[in-house]
Amino acid sequence: MTSQSTTAAAIAKVSAPDRKMRYDAIFDAALAKLHGEGRYRVFIDILRNKGSFPDARCFAGHNGPKPITVWCSNDYLSMGQHPKVIAAMEEALHDVGAGSGGTRNIGGNTHYHLDLEAELADLHGKEGALLFTSGYISNEATLSTLARVLPGCVIFSDALNHASMIAGIRNSGCEKKVWRHNDLEHLEQLLAETNPALPKLIAFESVYSMDGDVAPIHAICDLAEKYGALTYLDEVHAVGMYGPRGGGISDRDEAAGRITVIEGTLAKAIGVMGGYIAADHRVIDVIRSYAPGFIFTTSLSPVLVAGALASVRHLKSSSAEREGQQASAARLKCALAEAGLPVMASTTHIVPLMVGDPVKAKKISDILLAEYGVYVQPINYPTVPRGTERLRFTPGPSHSVEMVRDLTQALVEIWHRLDMRLAA
Amino acid sequence: MTSQSTTAAAIAKVSAPDRKMRYDAIFDAALAKLHGEGRYRVFIDILRNKGSFPDARCFAGHNGPKPITVWCSNDYLSMGQHPKVIAAMEEALHDVGAGSGGTRNIGGNTHYHLDLEAELADLHGKEGALLFTSGYISNEATLSTLARVLPGCVIFSDALNHASMIAGIRNSGCEKKVWRHNDLEHLEQLLAETNPALPKLIAFESVYSMDGDVAPIHAICDLAEKYGALTYLDEVHAVGMYGPRGGGISDRDEAAGRITVIEGTLAKAIGVMGGYIAADHRVIDVIRSYAPGFIFTTSLSPVLVAGALASVRHLKSSSAEREGQQASAARLKCALAEAGLPVMASTTHIVPLMVGDPVKAKKISDILLAEYGVYVQPINYPTVPRGTERLRFTPGPSHSVEMVRDLTQALVEIWHRLDMRLAA
Ligand SMILES: Cc1ncc(COP(=O)(O)O)c(C=O)c1O
Ligand SMILES: Cc1ncc(COP(=O)(O)O)c(C=O)c1O
Repeated sequence: MTSQSTTAAAIAKVSAPDRKMRYDAIFDAALAKLHGEGRYRVFIDILRNKGSFPDARCFAGHNGPKPITVWCSNDYLSMGQHPKVIAAMEEALHDVGAGSGGTRNIGGNTHYHLDLEAELADLHGKEGALLFTSGYISNEATLSTLARVLPGCVIFSDALNHASMIAGIRNSGCEKKVWRHNDLEHLEQLLAETNPALPKLIAFESVYSMDGDVAPIHAICDLAEKYGALTYLDEVHAVGMYGPRGGGISDRDEAAGRITVIEGTLAKAIGVMGGYIAADHRVIDVIRSYAPGFIFTTSLSPVLVAGALASVRHLKSSSAEREGQQASAARLKCALAEAGLPVMASTTHIVPLMVGDPVKAKKISDILLAEYGVYVQPINYPTVPRGTERLRFTPGPSHSVEMVRDLTQALVEIWHRLDMRLAA
Repeated sequence: MTSQSTTAAAIAKVSAPDRKMRYDAIFDAALAKLHGEGRYRVFIDILRNKGSFPDARCFAGHNGPKPITVWCSNDYLSMGQHPKVIAAMEEALHDVGAGSGGTRNIGGNTHYHLDLEAELADLHGKEGALLFTSGYISNEATLSTLARVLPGCVIFSDALNHASMIAGIRNSGCEKKVWRHNDLEHLEQLLAETNPALPKLIAFESVYSMDGDVAPIHAICDLAEKYGALTYLDEVHAVGMYGPRGGGISDRDEAAGRITVIEGTLAKAIGVMGGYIAADHRVIDVIRSYAPGFIFTTSLSPVLVAGALASVRHLKSSSAEREGQQASAARLKCALAEAGLPVMASTTHIVPLMVGDPVKAKKISDILLAEYGVYVQPINYPTVPRGTERLRFTPGPSHSVEMVRDLTQALVEIWHRLDMRLAA
């Protein structure tokens, strides 16, 4: 955006109404850039149908709502529709009302918050947990605060870390070293060349949500121990989904005890909204006491907290949703591969289909919605690197065999229509 | 915290278990600092009673819930308990479920979100509005993004701006000039000495929530026009509370048309949770397209959005809550002043009582809760400057004449007990 500085330089030389036009010109240029690259985002307007998800209604460009099938929800297990979750939220709504009315420190600390924190600490086998208003802010606030509290801290960040982790690392102002995605040799090289006297923090995810691959948690912890680093693991796409109780990949791999901070969301497999960290008491207390993104904001609505509590508790003892979802994902991957479609090598519940061009990705998504009633969003830069634009499917336990078949057929037809290559 | 760097320097020279102890020592030192200054925060555990607010139940340090009166909620108008709000949330919960299931771009854009954005744009007389998961993140994301899009931008920030605005300004990485609180001469001096060719943004609040004073919006806009600056106004503590339709101080003062970006929360007078900005289409589109804190996070739960929509609509046409709240605040201020208590000169609905010492402020609050069943949180650094620690009362429309009398008597008794001075 620095190319607009000539416009900026001219701002002061003109009268007030003209000045407004100069600001507008900068904003217009920023928007034109997105249009030019085919990655200006248009939000489609939908309502899900409770009780019959993945069915939904779409409002955009139609006369009245039109039925669609949602293929890109992060409510992976449909817990946002689960009767226990709905009932818990309704009860809280009638018991205590809509919002918390304050920050955690000033009037907004309810019994629900404490119960959910205890439940999440237990889920991850940690001494404590701390709620945030979103997974985004839990990453931003925790990483920026941890690194600021540790003088001279160096953060080692996986190249594909989520924007919220990058924001936290950047906002900490500390030194950052980026290691190539899941590349242990590169990580070790960077650790080895860093002053041993400095505090270190390795930040990574368990399931990378746009590719569907998984981090080697134990091997990373080995390096952390060897080089005296703390570890920070984003389990946003794995909480509720993996491990016997839904504690994530670190639960499945029995690695949670080796991680300093586990971070998660209540908005994906848990089906509600909000974020959290789990760690030992000391770390929780430091973040609770020092992180502006935790301190200076109204706490989560007790209604959401009650819903998340019911969801986490359910998923601790029920594996049916996880199994149904994995079966559905396996079915879709298999169908796409058999049809010769470029499904990416995901080892998880996420099914990405490579397109490699932002305009085409958008076009396929538009045709699917308009002609097939299939809703899947194109994933473009900056969510994924340029040239790797894709469609990202998230089949849930309720996507039927027929839906998988219809989707595959639709994609094959569109691939032909757009003269795109299918594998033999 | 840099004084701990000797500890840090020792980290690498020792074995792995010892290394963990060194990190722990840094964390312990950070916490000890808070304890030492008497500003370690203990959250009290409460549940509000829907339908009979300000009554609530307190769980901390008691056997079973004990009834209390809440005097520090930011649900200023008790809208979090309003039947219309509860009904709207219940309906949404049953219609679409608990969460949105995605970011605004990927599956999380619902009809409710679009309706509320239209309603908020109308409330502030702007072309558009944009929802965020909190007021905190709306400030952080908008300020950091605006300043990054405008090359060379200089931000002029009121000295008492909220932590979330400060975070946004800091994270933008641009030059920041702090003007003395509400001091127009100082603001003009800083504007005048800044290179006229650079883009400028003046960031301030309407109601400063810890002092209860109000910004001279028109005069600030005069300066903005004279020096070619954009304006950013945080109306978090004024939305719903001032103006014929609850559009805030800029509504009351008929100044909204002069402000570039108006920011607000759905978590205080609106009674629910979430944040937003209102501005012209172009600015909204830039923030929507470029702000990580908007893009990379699950959108607000439709349940919250439905509740906020009902609340905003109600407060647009009903002034009864605003009038009741103002009457209650006037009654309390008057009673405290008559009793010789050091009530601060607030011109708004906020009633701060100066204590000037963090330990005493906490002690008074503890006695009020334990002996009088009154819940008011002490406000300490960093929420207010050191030496200005205070109690901050937020009387609502349902605080009765008797409650005001009882509170005043309790405070006088405590003031005597702690040998603190009352005015003649
Ligand atoms: C890896 C990762 N971390 C964090 C987040 C943010 O979580 P939330 O949606 O709760 O803000 C997301 C997605 O939104 C994510 O994909
Ligand atoms: C002035 C001001 N701005 C913004 C916020 C943040 O709003 P929210 O609680 O919705 O995050 C607050 C308080 O929480 C505030 O006092």
